[in-house]
Amino acid sequence: MGLTVAVAGASGYAGGELLRLVHAHPEMEVGAVTAHSNTGTRLGEHHPHLIELADRTLEPTSADVLSGHDVVALALPHGASGEIAARLPDDVLVLDCGADHRLTDRAAWEHFYGTEHAGAWPYGLPELMRADGERQRTALHGARRVAVPGCNVTAVTLAMAPGLAAGVVSAGDIVAVLACGPSGAGRSLKPHLLAGEIMGAATPYAVGGGHRHVPEIEQNLAAASGATVRLSFTPTLVPMSRGILATVTAPLTGSATAARDAWAEAYADEPFVHVLPEGQWPTTAAVLGANTAHVQVTVDERAGRVVAVAAIDNLTKGTAGAAVQSANIALGMPETLGLPTSGVAP
Amino acid sequence: MGLTVAVAGASGYAGGELLRLVHAHPEMEVGAVTAHSNTGTRLGEHHPHLIELADRTLEPTSADVLSGHDVVALALPHGASGEIAARLPDDVLVLDCGADHRLTDRAAWEHFYGTEHAGAWPYGLPELMRADGERQRTALHGARRVAVPGCNVTAVTLAMAPGLAAGVVSAGDIVAVLACGPSGAGRSLKPHLLAGEIMGAATPYAVGGGHRHVPEIEQNLAAASGATVRLSFTPTLVPMSRGILATVTAPLTGSATAARDAWAEAYADEPFVHVLPEGQWPTTAAVLGANTAHVQVTVDERAGRVVAVAAIDNLTKGTAGAAVQSANIALGMPETLGLPTSGVAP
Amino acid sequence: MGLTVAVAGASGYAGGELLRLVHAHPEMEVGAVTAHSNTGTRLGEHHPHLIELADRTLEPTSADVLSGHDVVALALPHGASGEIAARLPDDVLVLDCGADHRLTDRAAWEHFYGTEHAGAWPYGLPELMRADGERQRTALHGARRVAVPGCNVTAVTLAMAPGLAAGVVSAGDIVAVLACGPSGAGRSLKPHLLAGEIMGAATPYAVGGGHRHVPEIEQNLAAASGATVRLSFTPTLVPMSRGILATVTAPLTGSATAARDAWAEAYADEPFVHVLPEGQWPTTAAVLGANTAHVQVTVDERAGRVVAVAAIDNLTKGTAGAAVQSANIALGMPETLGLPTSGVAP
Amino acid sequence: MGLTVAVAGASGYAGGELLRLVHAHPEMEVGAVTAHSNTGTRLGEHHPHLIELADRTLEPTSADVLSGHDVVALALPHGASGEIAARLPDDVLVLDCGADHRLTDRAAWEHFYGTEHAGAWPYGLPELMRADGERQRTALHGARRVAVPGCNVTAVTLAMAPGLAAGVVSAGDIVAVLACGPSGAGRSLKPHLLAGEIMGAATPYAVGGGHRHVPEIEQNLAAASGATVRLSFTPTLVPMSRGILATVTAPLTGSATAARDAWAEAYADEPFVHVLPEGQWPTTAAVLGANTAHVQVTVDERAGRVVAVAAIDNLTKGTAGAAVQSANIALGMPETLGLPTSGVAP
Repeated sequence: MGLTVAVAGASGYAGGELLRLVHAHPEMEVGAVTAHSNTGTRLGEHHPHLIELADRTLEPTSADVLSGHDVVALALPHGASGEIAARLPDDVLVLDCGADHRLTDRAAWEHFYGTEHAGAWPYGLPELMRADGERQRTALHGARRVAVPGCNVTAVTLAMAPGLAAGVVSAGDIVAVLACGPSGAGRSLKPHLLAGEIMGAATPYAVGGGHRHVPEIEQNLAAASGATVRLSFTPTLVPMSRGILATVTAPLTGSATAARDAWAEAYADEPFVHVLPEGQWPTTAAVLGANTAHVQVTVDERAGRVVAVAAIDNLTKGTAGAAVQSANIALGMPETLGLPTSGVAP
Repeated sequence: MGLTVAVAGASGYAGGELLRLVHAHPEMEVGAVTAHSNTGTRLGEHHPHLIELADRTLEPTSADVLSGHDVVALALPHGASGEIAARLPDDVLVLDCGADHRLTDRAAWEHFYGTEHAGAWPYGLPELMRADGERQRTALHGARRVAVPGCNVTAVTLAMAPGLAAGVVSAGDIVAVLACGPSGAGRSLKPHLLAGEIMGAATPYAVGGGHRHVPEIEQNLAAASGATVRLSFTPTLVPMSRGILATVTAPLTGSATAARDAWAEAYADEPFVHVLPEGQWPTTAAVLGANTAHVQVTVDERAGRVVAVAAIDNLTKGTAGAAVQSANIALGMPETLGLPTSGVAP
Repeated sequence: MGLTVAVAGASGYAGGELLRLVHAHPEMEVGAVTAHSNTGTRLGEHHPHLIELADRTLEPTSADVLSGHDVVALALPHGASGEIAARLPDDVLVLDCGADHRLTDRAAWEHFYGTEHAGAWPYGLPELMRADGERQRTALHGARRVAVPGCNVTAVTLAMAPGLAAGVVSAGDIVAVLACGPSGAGRSLKPHLLAGEIMGAATPYAVGGGHRHVPEIEQNLAAASGATVRLSFTPTLVPMSRGILATVTAPLTGSATAARDAWAEAYADEPFVHVLPEGQWPTTAAVLGANTAHVQVTVDERAGRVVAVAAIDNLTKGTAGAAVQSANIALGMPETLGLPTSGVAP
Repeated sequence: MGLTVAVAGASGYAGGELLRLVHAHPEMEVGAVTAHSNTGTRLGEHHPHLIELADRTLEPTSADVLSGHDVVALALPHGASGEIAARLPDDVLVLDCGADHRLTDRAAWEHFYGTEHAGAWPYGLPELMRADGERQRTALHGARRVAVPGCNVTAVTLAMAPGLAAGVVSAGDIVAVLACGPSGAGRSLKPHLLAGEIMGAATPYAVGGGHRHVPEIEQNLAAASGATVRLSFTPTLVPMSRGILATVTAPLTGSATAARDAWAEAYADEPFVHVLPEGQWPTTAAVLGANTAHVQVTVDERAGRVVAVAAIDNLTKGTAGAAVQSANIALGMPETLGLPTSGVAP
């Protein structure tokens, strides 16, 4: 009964969401749970919502502890996964929720992260449209190493890729502004993440192009468009635990009808990405806890721009859900297996 | 495949949660969805989170539409369910999420509701301890009419019943103060439920004994204790969508050790009610979307009182989850079938 | 002692904020308070935070009731102020917080509002830069009719006008995305404003150029730039009572240094608009309850765009504070008199 | 012009609120601002809402830096103020916002704090009713050392003291449950204060009598009643930045009419404490940023208990406002000078 899944970084938010999804998956079961400074403590101290796993004890994060599982999910700070992965057998499926193996461009990695490039793994955004007409899921069949996308990246990519792939918008002047819940920043003891700072506050960060998700978005949108991408990207923290709402605009280059059609066709067969009926706009509340993206698009004739909006849960479709979805594909299971599509609302 | 479940009042919050749970249940499927003023509209307008049901159309709430299902769940204002239920066949399982059939005491009904008493149905709180040593679930086997408890009632009852049943606290001076999310008040267009009024605000209501949940709590706690109950009950609205945290105190009449044991033993075998490890206190965030109650208890020697706290999700364990749990029992399925036990956190 | 100020629409959010500021103003005192459906009720029912005014009774909104004051502030739905104002003496200062008298372009009014144009009044954004080098405050000296700006308009205008006035950015492709608290929509009994819909939710609205603030922003930015403006404008509701964070980008046409200087110089002498130290970004939490705008700007060389961000309180600097500030100017008092500059945080 | 006020612990939440109030006070001006680990940084980094003080630099907290002011306000962790105060001249007014000098009972101090008792200072709750018929403000005239009350303490005391002083309720079995915003816990980098943990969560803490505010409440209520107090006290954290809602019940020993009268009379002449009209209940939203307490009371005949509710802003009336109010009294100024009575809502 089931594939064993070890989760490293299990006491954090991404780790907790991985555990929630794996525990509910009909073909998976939770194996080792590991941590760094929380080693030796009960999982229930950190994740009281995972009541059935509460008595598990956090072990140290090491290749020894993680070995012997069918799947190893890494929810670690960037820079930590390369070494661990290198010591795991090749036939173990390793899901890296960190950034280390997402970028194919060594120079971009070095520019944004300032460390040595660990190399790229198959990228875990199955719905990603590519200029060759394929979806990214084909690259995941049988994969044993998967780079799970950044959460903001998934939201922006899903919002705008259809128009780029269809050639109805220009890649040369894309503007994305995001409203993000603070859980995307992890369970870090930083002053700006205190409740007193977040409640009542909308606050931008990493403004002006410095956010590390920029090159990853550009990589995806370039894959979709076949063209060079110029992107203005501004995330803002808003007072909700989870969720990303990405408002993305690009210059209209095709007809308004063609634009609407591009999105509808792009996601017509996708189980987790839904273009809403005309006039209904995505809201993060509708995707809470679900591996679902809601998308809507319109053309602003006055401004000469297409406006596309995507809502995801940063921890589910944005991280842990994408990991499980990719694992399903990699391991030859139905892509949707064990993944919630309904959000929890209100 | 599966039992068909019709949901009346489907455009409201309780209706939406019923749909979420029924849709995810392996042995149930959503049948007719009905509404009052929203008849004829798409379900997706009201519940965008239920993406797979979004194209369903709301039908009028009538016995005709509801007939022909195995289960009918009523999420209607009180006073509306009696007539509908009377026109449904006896072998249909009717789950009334409203108040009409909860109280056994006609006088209490008339005092608090001011209308004619519709009579009592088997009460859908399976974990309820009774003075005869049985649990309430025995009354639900084979039932075809179930009165689903009020959400505040469930929280207070689960918090304090163990001490009363074990005789370690007195029923004569119970004080309960609750922090409640506004979704418990439904999707009503009332000024005090506007976001501008709720965010940043903690506000009590129905203070001084007038809340309609008072006689229902008293009924439950009397069942547990075998004694007459005196209860001071104050709910307060706080800025979270869902969740009830009930802080309940009663005079200690037994030993402190006996008190702790009473709670541990009461819930040792319950799949949905968990006494947390000593020192860890319930939080509503940990039960969001789950049919789970978290409970903790301590003795305040200085004050001579036991303090017990329960956290539930008002829409899940407090309403729709209790309905499905009761249906599982009534229909001879495993009690836990299809019900989430993990919360969605953070 | 002091100027008497009548407030029409006093039971709403904008009306409440007007009362808060007028009551605290050393040279003003609250006169008649009027309402529509709430006529005859205590003010304290609607605004318990205005404890010293709680026993005032709401009178009907009519020219008769409003006459006889030095200042009349109108916080009415659009379309209602023209008739009232016409019946007030010319020497009474009328502050219209609604939209009726903001637009100078009849065609734009008719296109966006679909009713007859009431004509334009002096526009109450004293800091507005104009292509002639003057600030808008010069137009307010001695004015007896003032059109108070829309809240989103103020945020976007203050964010981007300096760059346009200085010629360092292009007016031809401006993109603005806003995070807005729901109090900006007023105390309206609309389903999407319920707490259950807002908490946990980031949701865009009026996407694609249809928002009525679009022509007003264009009017302001055209005044600043002397050029035709093209604007993509997307507001999003986020879960905070008050506040607007406007993220506004425009193509860079000058040097990066010139851009930074443009903003610093534009607001160097403004008492209510502050460019933050480099690297510090505005947050709505810092301006809660204050008539203050915080602004920051940076150049994204990669994207070829300037990104400017402004944070205001939609009810204070965005509405009632702007009204009082304009009144101070119109009546020859110090511009800052009686207006809070410190926010209430956290 | 004006009295100089130094603020120690200026980078925290209580320190920020002291600065906001002192800066707005017509007879005070902000002098030295000091900190511990943040020494040398700009005040604006920590309190961007205090825009006019943003360029002040934080100095080290020492008697040298603090000397030479008319007033010194200490917002320090408990244990830190005694030594500092001892080194300040006797004629400097020292306002200790920490706990060190609140308790008169050495044994209670040692039991709850575990350190040596620093001795008691005049207690800064001017409205406190005492069994001798006096109010506590008489003890503050001319004082040069003031112990500012704990925020929860103020809420509970103001809620229940009138009934105890009038003898209409019993002191022997008081139950208080509070909903508290997390700013009361300060700007501490603790995991449970992260936004991800607070939003969506109602969570009790220090349950069962261990909270350090217990002996202080007992001290106050004993002063009011002249009798020994037994108190069950449970604070709960809820998702709002500021605010305390205290729901306090006590056994009714007098008549219902006498109870209502007791509260009305107790606060009839108090400028900052208001008994709301019958049927209207306090909400924390109405006192945000104000030095105001809203109080309501009712009798629950069924339960035999009086239920009294008080709402305050923990940082204003709960801390910094109480300090300034006490300073006004101590220094012979009007008690209400410079203190806001209107809240900022919504």
